[in-house]
Amino acid sequence: MAASLTHHFTYRVYWEDTDAGGVVYHARYLHFYERARTDWLLALGFPQVEFREKTQCVFVVTRMEIDFLKPAHLEDELRVSVRVEEMKKASMVFAQTIERVSDHALLNRAKVSVATVHSDTFKPTRLPRELVAAHQPS
Amino acid sequence: MAASLTHHFTYRVYWEDTDAGGVVYHARYLHFYERARTDWLLALGFPQVEFREKTQCVFVVTRMEIDFLKPAHLEDELRVSVRVEEMKKASMVFAQTIERVSDHALLNRAKVSVATVHSDTFKPTRLPRELVAAHQPS
Amino acid sequence: MAASLTHHFTYRVYWEDTDAGGVVYHARYLHFYERARTDWLLALGFPQVEFREKTQCVFVVTRMEIDFLKPAHLEDELRVSVRVEEMKKASMVFAQTIERVSDHALLNRAKVSVATVHSDTFKPTRLPRELVAAHQPS
Amino acid sequence: MAASLTHHFTYRVYWEDTDAGGVVYHARYLHFYERARTDWLLALGFPQVEFREKTQCVFVVTRMEIDFLKPAHLEDELRVSVRVEEMKKASMVFAQTIERVSDHALLNRAKVSVATVHSDTFKPTRLPRELVAAHQPS
Repeated sequence: MAASLTHHFTYRVYWEDTDAGGVVYHARYLHFYERARTDWLLALGFPQVEFREKTQCVFVVTRMEIDFLKPAHLEDELRVSVRVEEMKKASMVFAQTIERVSDHALLNRAKVSVATVHSDTFKPTRLPRELVAAHQPS
Repeated sequence: MAASLTHHFTYRVYWEDTDAGGVVYHARYLHFYERARTDWLLALGFPQVEFREKTQCVFVVTRMEIDFLKPAHLEDELRVSVRVEEMKKASMVFAQTIERVSDHALLNRAKVSVATVHSDTFKPTRLPRELVAAHQPS
Repeated sequence: MAASLTHHFTYRVYWEDTDAGGVVYHARYLHFYERARTDWLLALGFPQVEFREKTQCVFVVTRMEIDFLKPAHLEDELRVSVRVEEMKKASMVFAQTIERVSDHALLNRAKVSVATVHSDTFKPTRLPRELVAAHQPS
Repeated sequence: MAASLTHHFTYRVYWEDTDAGGVVYHARYLHFYERARTDWLLALGFPQVEFREKTQCVFVVTRMEIDFLKPAHLEDELRVSVRVEEMKKASMVFAQTIERVSDHALLNRAKVSVATVHSDTFKPTRLPRELVAAHQPS
């Protein structure tokens, strides 16, 4: 079943991601997770701009639980995973992780709840059926 | 007991904080929380640069649970709270919230676990006693 | 004449502004400059959200010349200046500087060209006369 | 001669890069330019972490002139160029551009002066000869 598939994307740590502690600034991991969810949607055939125009639907993060296990450093190549844990009527839960490519160390782990809302009113709206269908091909 | 005191700081939402959805980009709330914890330390008399030089101790976020309840918008004035929920040997747990000043709407809520580590080795180190003392004056 | 007045705003350097070099990441100075221009508009009585709704006018940066003279560090208090050097029909030129409050060292200097464009079409539009009037009270 | 070669790198615009105006936040272009310079150094065989350890040399931006010609939007694929215009004893000047891949529109153009400084003292230091050699293979 598609729901159990895990997608992976790699990003490199640039100067912009680090702070004076010499490691990646903690909020930056949320950026990496969001890029991976965006790339997952793209891979499924849903560029978000077009998607919003067609469906008036945008995704908003409603809750995150994040474990910052080990710090990432400048120039690390990071492997960010996306797995849909749950798909409900108007929301999804993702399980995501960040590993360092060089040694497969698990650096970060997150559970991300995302709701679908109308792009103008920000009111909850159903997950577009194309997305549900693409995700669970039957 | 000092541990129950809540400190508040206000920050304004600038263009840099928003995204093309017209609201604050979700990772930015972590910045506001971090600024408030920094300002809380300053208010207690612990500028972090000096603190690090004296104690070789830096703070790292180890876990966050964040509820994104309502979006903040450009130019909103935000009131960010900091309350220490727990102080352990080498870590602290903060309860933090973000309210919109204009109508006191609760926009965001977080539980933030912070560990103290050695600034060179990133190994756990005890909370400096000056901080524990300042926080719990008797 | 009002045009020669210089406005100042102070901002503190937080962890989010620094990079692994131990100093403020170069692009962050643009954020400080933009915050100061925003605060200058607010001080003149032009919150940008309301301004955009009333006039359909938004500001876009069209050119910057920036000299990065000395690095700012974590927890530095920065004094950011805004001075309008020129006001044309559909654009303005600002001269801006960033000083460290503690020793008045000049850290950064910029010349910023800003155009007024229509918020939907992004086509050039005249500077709203309220702004011109507020800036040059006569 | 190697000095005239132009290198290109592509980056996608994510939510994090945009602001409530619906376009890329102006300071973000500096991030794209910096990523391209970093990737250029990597392509020449100079990962910056190793480079700093070996040579005690880091790069700091000392001046930028940037023309913001047209806005980039969410999900645009951007082609960022790097060309060394000048190599001096302790500095380099880069000519850089950002084009939209889909229609080759020129969105942004910059001239970036970068100095080499000692990683501890931030004092000017000569460009490492390995870099000069790699750049101008003879």
